[in-house]
Parts: sequence; structure tokens; C-alpha cells
Amino acid sequence: MTDTYQRSSGRAAHQLRPVRITRHYTMHAEGSVLIEFGATKVLCTASVEDKVPPHKRGSGQGWVTAEYGMLPRATNTRGSREAAKGKQSGRTQEIQRLIGRSLRAVFDLEKLGERTITLDCDVLQADGGTRTAAITGAWVAAHDAVGTLLQSGTLAATPITGAVAAISVGIVQGTPLLDLEYVEDSACDTDMNIVMTGAGQFVEIQGTAEGVSFSRTELDELLRLGELGIAQLLALQQQSLS
Amino acid sequence: MTDTYQRSSGRAAHQLRPVRITRHYTMHAEGSVLIEFGATKVLCTASVEDKVPPHKRGSGQGWVTAEYGMLPRATNTRGSREAAKGKQSGRTQEIQRLIGRSLRAVFDLEKLGERTITLDCDVLQADGGTRTAAITGAWVAAHDAVGTLLQSGTLAATPITGAVAAISVGIVQGTPLLDLEYVEDSACDTDMNIVMTGAGQFVEIQGTAEGVSFSRTELDELLRLGELGIAQLLALQQQSLS
Amino acid sequence: MTDTYQRSSGRAAHQLRPVRITRHYTMHAEGSVLIEFGATKVLCTASVEDKVPPHKRGSGQGWVTAEYGMLPRATNTRGSREAAKGKQSGRTQEIQRLIGRSLRAVFDLEKLGERTITLDCDVLQADGGTRTAAITGAWVAAHDAVGTLLQSGTLAATPITGAVAAISVGIVQGTPLLDLEYVEDSACDTDMNIVMTGAGQFVEIQGTAEGVSFSRTELDELLRLGELGIAQLLALQQQSLS
Amino acid sequence: MTDTYQRSSGRAAHQLRPVRITRHYTMHAEGSVLIEFGATKVLCTASVEDKVPPHKRGSGQGWVTAEYGMLPRATNTRGSREAAKGKQSGRTQEIQRLIGRSLRAVFDLEKLGERTITLDCDVLQADGGTRTAAITGAWVAAHDAVGTLLQSGTLAATPITGAVAAISVGIVQGTPLLDLEYVEDSACDTDMNIVMTGAGQFVEIQGTAEGVSFSRTELDELLRLGELGIAQLLALQQQSLS
Amino acid sequence: MTDTYQRSSGRAAHQLRPVRITRHYTMHAEGSVLIEFGATKVLCTASVEDKVPPHKRGSGQGWVTAEYGMLPRATNTRGSREAAKGKQSGRTQEIQRLIGRSLRAVFDLEKLGERTITLDCDVLQADGGTRTAAITGAWVAAHDAVGTLLQSGTLAATPITGAVAAISVGIVQGTPLLDLEYVEDSACDTDMNIVMTGAGQFVEIQGTAEGVSFSRTELDELLRLGELGIAQLLALQQQSLS
Amino acid sequence: MTDTYQRSSGRAAHQLRPVRITRHYTMHAEGSVLIEFGATKVLCTASVEDKVPPHKRGSGQGWVTAEYGMLPRATNTRGSREAAKGKQSGRTQEIQRLIGRSLRAVFDLEKLGERTITLDCDVLQADGGTRTAAITGAWVAAHDAVGTLLQSGTLAATPITGAVAAISVGIVQGTPLLDLEYVEDSACDTDMNIVMTGAGQFVEIQGTAEGVSFSRTELDELLRLGELGIAQLLALQQQSLS
Repeated sequence: MTDTYQRSSGRAAHQLRPVRITRHYTMHAEGSVLIEFGATKVLCTASVEDKVPPHKRGSGQGWVTAEYGMLPRATNTRGSREAAKGKQSGRTQEIQRLIGRSLRAVFDLEKLGERTITLDCDVLQADGGTRTAAITGAWVAAHDAVGTLLQSGTLAATPITGAVAAISVGIVQGTPLLDLEYVEDSACDTDMNIVMTGAGQFVEIQGTAEGVSFSRTELDELLRLGELGIAQLLALQQQSLS
Repeated sequence: MTDTYQRSSGRAAHQLRPVRITRHYTMHAEGSVLIEFGATKVLCTASVEDKVPPHKRGSGQGWVTAEYGMLPRATNTRGSREAAKGKQSGRTQEIQRLIGRSLRAVFDLEKLGERTITLDCDVLQADGGTRTAAITGAWVAAHDAVGTLLQSGTLAATPITGAVAAISVGIVQGTPLLDLEYVEDSACDTDMNIVMTGAGQFVEIQGTAEGVSFSRTELDELLRLGELGIAQLLALQQQSLS
Repeated sequence: MTDTYQRSSGRAAHQLRPVRITRHYTMHAEGSVLIEFGATKVLCTASVEDKVPPHKRGSGQGWVTAEYGMLPRATNTRGSREAAKGKQSGRTQEIQRLIGRSLRAVFDLEKLGERTITLDCDVLQADGGTRTAAITGAWVAAHDAVGTLLQSGTLAATPITGAVAAISVGIVQGTPLLDLEYVEDSACDTDMNIVMTGAGQFVEIQGTAEGVSFSRTELDELLRLGELGIAQLLALQQQSLS
Repeated sequence: MTDTYQRSSGRAAHQLRPVRITRHYTMHAEGSVLIEFGATKVLCTASVEDKVPPHKRGSGQGWVTAEYGMLPRATNTRGSREAAKGKQSGRTQEIQRLIGRSLRAVFDLEKLGERTITLDCDVLQADGGTRTAAITGAWVAAHDAVGTLLQSGTLAATPITGAVAAISVGIVQGTPLLDLEYVEDSACDTDMNIVMTGAGQFVEIQGTAEGVSFSRTELDELLRLGELGIAQLLALQQQSLS
Repeated sequence: MTDTYQRSSGRAAHQLRPVRITRHYTMHAEGSVLIEFGATKVLCTASVEDKVPPHKRGSGQGWVTAEYGMLPRATNTRGSREAAKGKQSGRTQEIQRLIGRSLRAVFDLEKLGERTITLDCDVLQADGGTRTAAITGAWVAAHDAVGTLLQSGTLAATPITGAVAAISVGIVQGTPLLDLEYVEDSACDTDMNIVMTGAGQFVEIQGTAEGVSFSRTELDELLRLGELGIAQLLALQQQSLS
Repeated sequence: MTDTYQRSSGRAAHQLRPVRITRHYTMHAEGSVLIEFGATKVLCTASVEDKVPPHKRGSGQGWVTAEYGMLPRATNTRGSREAAKGKQSGRTQEIQRLIGRSLRAVFDLEKLGERTITLDCDVLQADGGTRTAAITGAWVAAHDAVGTLLQSGTLAATPITGAVAAISVGIVQGTPLLDLEYVEDSACDTDMNIVMTGAGQFVEIQGTAEGVSFSRTELDELLRLGELGIAQLLALQQQSLS
């Protein structure tokens, strides 16, 4: 496989876009983080509520869940507002279920106690990779929300068992690339989202080939790129917290 | 009526909160404005589309409309996401109809031609006055969107016939106040939203007394405060455009 | 401003249409009033139920709320049935919220106790002014419903603190008019609904200029007309109760 | 079977309630009829529109359809408003499908041409038999609507091939009764709605035994009662038209 | 009336299609029956749950209800999936209400105790008569579900008071026919569904003439055919249970 | 990693359940396949329609899409019917999007021409692996549907570019297993669905760790098991077609 595809941004194939994590972005939420992967901007808020969904009532356990949305003009052409259409698309539901599962992978729900942390991930500006930015930012927001529970003495010990971050990888014109932006994402043959913990374990792998299917060799290269990118994101999360 | 109510912010009764208008806040929309009335932050984008709703098809006229949303944690306690509930509240619909009417009051739809400008007003952070901030910011976004149509030669002359801005006024513990923030808004007896043009004419007056009804004298004082506030907002709009 | 516009009905600019209030119009409701403003006919029923919405449970307070509907062929061309479409329009929601707020302005919810009065305002025939007729008639229906609670001894004292009535005013071809019928309403530049108490205080003012905006002088004239009309409606309400 | 059940109204088992048919009840619709079966009052309007549903487009045939609704407080205890709930109940849908089929049975859709007659049957006050009153009144409203089409010369010949009327019958405590009112309807073992043409043919028979099932002998008696009642309704329809 | 219509299947006018009842068709449900009326195949499952709908709570009585569905390609041309459209059609609701009422006619809800039996009737392949097959099969499934309650000792005595079965009859080109298949159903002038108990009593009669209305003589013949068919179905049910 | 987990079925860790593929299961669809993975039974029908969704109109290309459903009592406890709830769950939408993408990966939409093949995958009985059974069976149904297009001469050459099949793998108590049944699926730490082509390329990989995250070594073992299972399924598909 020759690495011939030239990224319009001039980035190397294995290079992340500039990542910025801004904490305390809005004032009401227990955790509020604006995360930017290049031009992609996602506002992640973490809200703590003293109630749990029915399947957790009386269990002594808490719940961590996520909702995802995109402002109508976060994208190049205006998308219709889901609230006005009266339903969330299949894509929206898939993404918010993915974010929820990813965060729960690093939460001890027993230690959280009977409360819910809701991660609202709202895309202000989209340029590819919104779901991976959302997961990476939501973890920082969740961390801040847990911080308020620790500070107030509501919780004695953190229910967070580790960090979690996510990145997209894909194959464009035969070249495996890290952290696809929109023009690459819409041109790619294979698109994969990888979610990993701070301990280097996998939480989610979602690889899709709507165009050209991919070989085991390509899969291995995509996983290698993803591991590289996530290691950097995990470092940036820690740096933003210090 | 003695002016006894002391605002927690130390503001005078007739004083606006600091207002900030940031143009080009996001990159995709033809117009994109972040407007801040104190801690209230509303992102107003203007999107131009070459189509009109059914009632305007073939009329030679365009359309100007608005949609309004609030991020779930824009407020002190998390509100449910309207897209997830599957419908917009009566409040949301009232507000977006108000924004649409206000903007249309300063648009010559004939001159706009058969295209639609949609103003998406999304509240990132709420502290009272979100609908008035939305109208004031949406006008700037609409102005920028029209600018792109003029620059590209799509339009030869502007369809905008003047400026429009809005402010809230209200009576709290007997004291008429300008530009209510959330604590004042929830304590007030009468709440009024005023929309005026750059020419000093009224576009909308919506005054509501759920608690104590108000006299003609109080109404006159509220209108006077409103006119004062709107004059300042109109100046700030012009300043942001220069 | 010269009063040049001639009303097709021959009415003077400051003249109400013939108003008829028929109590006990249907047999099941605690209050049931057919109110007619000329050809506009609205059936207002008041239903008493021994339950309150969640935000009032355990508060010792009651609730007063309204629902509004229009029969599909109440209008000149058939409108679609909201029950069949599966949702209420923004207009319907705005109107029922307005009726509810207007009635609550003259109710002591504490004295009502933990029960709900629902005012169903259904338009049988429409010719402009349906929301103002609805408010004016709903008050009589609410009064009758409270009467049954007093008579049965459920309540010892009335929770009604005064009367409330509403009228529309507007500017058609430069002429301020009282109580617009449909042809006037669709031709008007400014349309205003005014709700006032029996004590001459304002409860709601909703003025809208989708066409030509209005000056302070015009606003004052509209308010004067509205006060005139409401004084007559308040008298007619009292007369219907005696 | 001994005829022991005494009707609270003093009516004989085979006696209809007083029936009143008021034409031109509202002013906008092409046909508008208030029909009363005792205390049951249904407003039936017929609206003519120059369009047909998709399955009739280009067929040269018209369509006749019905919608049914009940005002929330038409009944003894307030029912929830279907428009507010966002869907029509199964009962409502059953009834409006029944009314539509019944009317189509006496319409030559070819002769109607590509237009739709919509029969809106709205119950203002309910005391049993609303669907049979609706069918009987809707036919008169449809007749009036066709009259306007004939008068204007839009149609040269009537598409109505005959009359149609409907009545309920039932067995209460072993006694077959004609035209059940609400207290009888809720106590009955078997409830049957019969729709017949002016020529004495059956259009619909819907008999239901949720309590005690019925024998062939009882069925025959119910059919006999129904034929009796419908003969009278057909006469009253003709009388109202003359 | 001359019996001239020749059925494409070669069946006599009074002849049922081959009927097959397969019990224990799927493994999870308390009762699971595949019933076939010729090419019509309906899977009827009976599920027992220890809860009742609100109107039965605390009454000591149970509830029996039904839901009906058709796989999108059960029919000759693909129908849209109701779950995807977001609502059940009026036809679906009518049928599931009919199945529920029919089963309740042979249940002693007191003896069932506060539990619910839900009959899910899903059409795998349709060729006319799906609702009558569903009722006939649902009764066998309900019987099996009650069997598990008796065997486990949850119930001491059966709440089933008798059998119930259903068949369609209709008039095609003047010929009364038993058990219509699809081509006959779509060509028929009158279509009637009859539900009867094992004791030979009627539970439901639903006869509809959208085309040509029917005489009393024709009605009598249809009832005679239906009684014949149901007698055979009742025998087949008993045989399947032994 | 020691292979200590004993499957209740006695199967080896790398062993598939018995797979049965029954073609022409129902009579109306162009392709109709019942596929069984042990006790899991999914009916897959392929319907051909001469229309395409909006985004393909006029493109000369066809479309392949899927819908997924589960009968309410396909599972151990009754699930609510999505048509009755009025919406499809996030899980349902995820699965039907996955099936659609998987099938499109082996279709040349250009060669299909402007027509749509809809794959309806309805679960009659569920015991784990319904989505992988659905993909594997849907391919056979699609193959049969294409066969009818070839036979009728509508298509000259097949638009199918290869086979596609899917299997689940997972880690239960540290042991990697192939083809999880329900008890294993609900106990597993990691669950992965793998979709591959006949050429041994990957189409989809969806691995999820809601419990314990997984290492790269475990991932490699899961992929190896999946490749093994899919090879067998591809052979069974071919065998069923011969």
C-alpha cells in the first residue's frame, strides 16, 4: 500500500488535527467542556440529577447516559431541526447510544449511587469526527461533574475507573488516515471509530465499508493508527485537567 | 411608585446588561452571530436556501422564518431535549413565531426573490431575555446573509428595509425594570417584550401579568424604558456592522 | 389620522359587534356558555376535576387551564383537523396559553384548593376575534362552575377575584378599529388583543405588526378603543349572570 | 322473553327519542346540519373541495369521506382532547370509517367527478347514539352540499343515489330496545348499529356482545326494531329537506 | 338468486378452505399457535403478565386484550411497516379491538384474577380472512396459556367459559360465499365477519356493503353460511386440543 | 487465556449452532427465506419495487435497504409492539441500518437500475444473534429476488457482486466464543458482530464492551473465530442455492 493520498490540510496520514479542550465553557452545568478537533466544535455538558431510570430504581446503582444533537447549521448545508421534525434520526440515536456505552465503560455505577449523569453533546460546528470528539470531551465534562460531587462531600470516592477517548480512522483512496475531516470522511471507502480506555483496552470498534470492503491487513493498520491517536488524546485530557 | 427594588447585579432600573455581538461565530452559515445580553448567550445563524414554503411558490416573493431551541443544560436545571421528547413546547413555538414575524417586519419579500432565509436561534446559556437577544442578534445575522447575496450579485439591492431589535421590561416588586435577568424574570408581576424598528415604530408588544395586573401608568413607564433600551441596541447593531 | 375606512358592516370604528352570551348551552359541564361576537361563535365549557397537574400536587393550590380548538369547517375554507394531523398548531397553543393565563389572573389558586378548572373553548363558527370571545365567555363559564362548587358546599368562598374580558383592536388602512371581523383582520396592518380586569387593569397586551409597524400615537389610540370595548363586555358579562 | 325493562325516559321499547334536524346551522359550509337524537347533538358539516385523495387522482371519480370528533366536555366526565394527545383513538377511527362507508354507499362517485365531500361530524353533546345521529345528519348535509353544486351548475345531475340513515338497537336486561341513550348503552349486553338505505337495503350491521352473547331470535328482533326506527328517520330526513 | 359464481379454487360456495392449527409453534409464549385458513397464515401467541391496565387495578379482575400486525410482505405488494410509519392504521386498530372483544366474550375476568393475557396475532402470509383466522387461533393460544396457569397451580379453575371462533362470508356477483379468499374479498359487494361461541350464540356481526347494499333475505343466507362454517371451526379447535 | 467456560448447549467455543436456510418460505415476496441459527428464527423477505428514494431519483442507480422487526413474543418476556408505541427503538434502527449497509456492500447499484430491493427481516423467535442471522438470510432472499428479475428479463446481468454473511462473537467469563446464544449474550463482557464478503474482506466490525474492555490479543482471537464461522455460513448459503 503506497501512501499517495495528499490531505488538503497538509497533515500527515497519522497526524491529529489541533485539539482544544476548554473547561467551564457554560456556567450552569456541573461539567461543561467545549472540545475542538480542528474545525469540529462540540459542547459537552454533564448534568447530575438525583434520580435514575426505571431499570435502576432501588438497585443502589446510578446511571450514565448521553444525548447528542447537531445545531441545524453546524453543517455546510442546513439540516432540519430534529425537534421540529418530531423525531431523532437513526444516526443521532446510534451516536448517543455509543457515547453512553463508552462513558459507562469507565464508571463504577455502584460507587456513583442512585443518581444519573447525563452527557449532552451538542455540535456547534461540524467538520467530521463529531462523535469521537463528543466522547473525548464528554469524559472531561463527566470528570468535572464528579469533581463537584466529591467537593460537596456527596461522594467520598470517585466512581470513575479510568479515562476514555475516541478517534476516527479510515481508508481514503487506499491510504489509511487518522482523524478524518469532513471531505475525507465523505470520500472514504472504510470508516472506523475506535474507543479506548486509558489502560489501552478497547471499548468499542465500529468499522464500516459501504464502498470497498477492507482486508485484515488494512484493519490492522487502522487499529495501529487509532491507538496512536488515542494515546495523544488521553494525554491532552490529562493536561486539560491539571 | 417608589423605585425601591435593588437589582442584585447593582444595575440601575433603566440599565441594559453588557451586550456583546460576535459576527462570523461559526463558519458554515451565511450569517452567524453570537449575541450576549449579560450571561445570556444565543447563537443566531442565517441560512439562505433557494426554495420557499408552499404558500409562496410561484409568487415571486421570498420568505423569512425562524427556529428557536435551547440546549438542555443552557438553564440552571437540565430541561428535556425537545428532539428526544418528539415535540416542541408551546413556549418554543411562540418564541420562534415571534422572531419570524419581527424579522419579516423589516424585509421586503418581493426584493428577496423566491428564496428563504432561516434564522436558527439556539440558546447556549440562558439568564433571561433569550427571545429578545435572539431577535436582536438574528437581525445582524440576516444582514450578513444578505451581504453574501449582494456580494455574489445574486441580489442587486438589499431587501432589508430597516433595523429591528427587542428588549424585555417588567415590574418587580412595584419597580419597572429594563432587561430582566432570570432571577428578576421569575419574580416579576408583569413581563413585557417590545420589538421596535430602527425608525422608532413598534413591531410587537407582548405584555403579560400572571401575577398582579398593571395600570395604564405602569404600561406607559414600561414602554418608555423599552424605547430607551432598544435605542441602545440599535446603536450596538450598527456598531457591530461597521 | 382621518377616519376614512368604511366597515362593510356599517359599524362605527369604535363599535362592538352584537354580543350574545348564552349560559347552560350544553348539559354536562359545570359551566357551559355559548358566546357570540357577531358571526363568531365559541362554545366555552368549564370542567371541574379533583386533581391538579404535577407542579401543583401537594401545594394546597388548584389550577386553571384552557384548551382551544376550531371545528374544521368553522372557517370559510376547511382547515385540517388537528386530532387527525396528530398535533396542535403553534397558533392553537399560543391561544390556549393566553386564555389560561388570562383566567388565572383573576383566580386565587389557594382558595380554589387542589382541583383543576379546565376551560374548553371550541369555535363553532369563526369570523375574527375567536380568542377574545373565548376569554370573555370562558370567564362566565368559570363563574358558573365556581357557582356549583359554592352551592354544593365544596367551597365556602369564591376563588374568583374579579372579572376578565378581552377584545381585539387593529389598524386597517390607517384607521384604528374596535373588534375586527375576519375581512378586517386579514387586511389589517396591526392587530392587537387586549385583556383587562373588571378593575380596569391590564392582564395582557399582544400587539403585532406584520405589515406596517405602528407609532406610539397609534398605540395609544388602540389602547383607548380597547378600554372602551372591554368596559362594555364587562357589563354584558354581569348582565348575563343576573 | 318478557318485556320487563322500564326505560327511565318512559319511552316504549320500540320508540325513538325526539329527533330534530336543523339545516344551515353554521354559515361557511356547503352543508351544515345540527341533528339531535334526544339530548345527543351532533353538528354535521359537508365541505366540497376540488381535489381527491391519491388513490382517486386521474380516475374521473370523486371521493366521500368523514371525520368524527367529540368536544372534550360533550360527555358527563371530561374526556381528553384528541388534538392535544396527538392521536385519534381506535373508537374515533372506527366511527369515522363507518360514516364514510355509509355515505359512499349512496353516492355515484363517477357522477361526483374529481372532487371530495368531507363530512365533519362533531359531537357537541353526547347521550348515546352519536354515530347513528352522525350518519343520519351527514346525509342531509351532503344533500345540501350537492344542492349547491347543482345550483351553481358545477354538476348537471345529482350523484346521490338514495337516502341513508342509521339507528342503534340493543338488549338491556333481556329487553330489545330501539335508540339507546347513554344509561341504556352502558348497561346493555348487546349493542347493534344498523345502517340502511331509503330502498330498505342494509349497508352496515355491527352487532357486539361484550357481556352476554345473543341468539338468532334476539338478532331477528333487533333487526326488526332497527328497520322500524330507520323508516321513521328516513321520513324525517325528507321532511327536513322540503 | 342463482348460484352462478365459480370459485377459482373449485371450492363450493359453502366450503371452508383447508384449516390447519399448529400448537407450540414458537417456544417462549405461554400459548403459541400457527393457524392457516388456506394460504392465510397467522401466528397467534398468548402472553400472561401479572399486571392489569389502569381501569382494572384493584378490581380483582383480569384483562384479555389483543394486538394485530401484518408483516410488510405478507401481502401481494409490500405494505409499509406500521412501526416505521409511527402509527397503526385505522384498519389495524379495528381488527385488534374486534379480536379483544371476541376473546373477552368467553372469559370470566373475575376468575382470571389480576393478570393480563395479551393475544398477539401476526399475519405471516395473507390471502383473505386474517381477522377471522386470528380470532379462531387466538382462542386456542389462550386456552394453552390458561393451561400453563392451571398446571402451575396459579389458577384453580379455568376462567374460560366456552369456545369462540370466527369466519367471513360475503356476496360475490350475487352469490353468497363462505370463507372468502383475497380475490373474492376484493371483488365482493358485501363482506361480513361473524363471531360465535361454542354454544351457538353470536358475539359479533359486522356486515358491510361498500358496493351494493344487501337485502334481509341475503343477510339470512349469509348468517346460515356463517353458522355452518363456525360449527366446523369449533370442531377443529377441539380436535387440535386433544 | 484458558478456555474454561462450558456452554450449556455442549457446543465447542468455535462451533456454530445448527443453521437452517428455508427458501420460498412465504408465497408473495420475490425472495422469502426463513433462516435459523439454533432457536433463533428470522423471516427475511426481499421485495422489488420500481421506485427509488429521493436521493437516487434520476441517478440511474437503484437502492437496497432493510427493515427489522421483532414479534412482541419472539422473546422470553413480551416486548411492547413498536407499531403500538409509535416508534422504532434505537436498537431497531441500528440493526436495520447495519443490514442495509451490509447488503449494499455486495450490490452494484448501477446494474440494479432505478428500483429498490427492501429486505424485511422479522424475528419470529429470538435466542441471540438475530442481526447476524438476518444479514445471512437476507442475502439469500436478495439473491432469489434478483433471480426473478433475471428470469423475467428485467435485468440482463446480476447486480450482486459477491456473497455476504455475518456472525457474532464474544467473550464470556474470559472465553472467546463463536455465535452467542441469548444466555451467553446477556452474560458476555464483549460482544462483536462481524460481517464479511465471500472474498474474505470485512464489511462491518462492531465490537462493544459494556462490561470489561478487551485487549488487542482478545480482539485478534475474536476476529479469528468470526472468520471461521463466516466461512461456514458462506458455504451454507451456496448450498441452499443449489
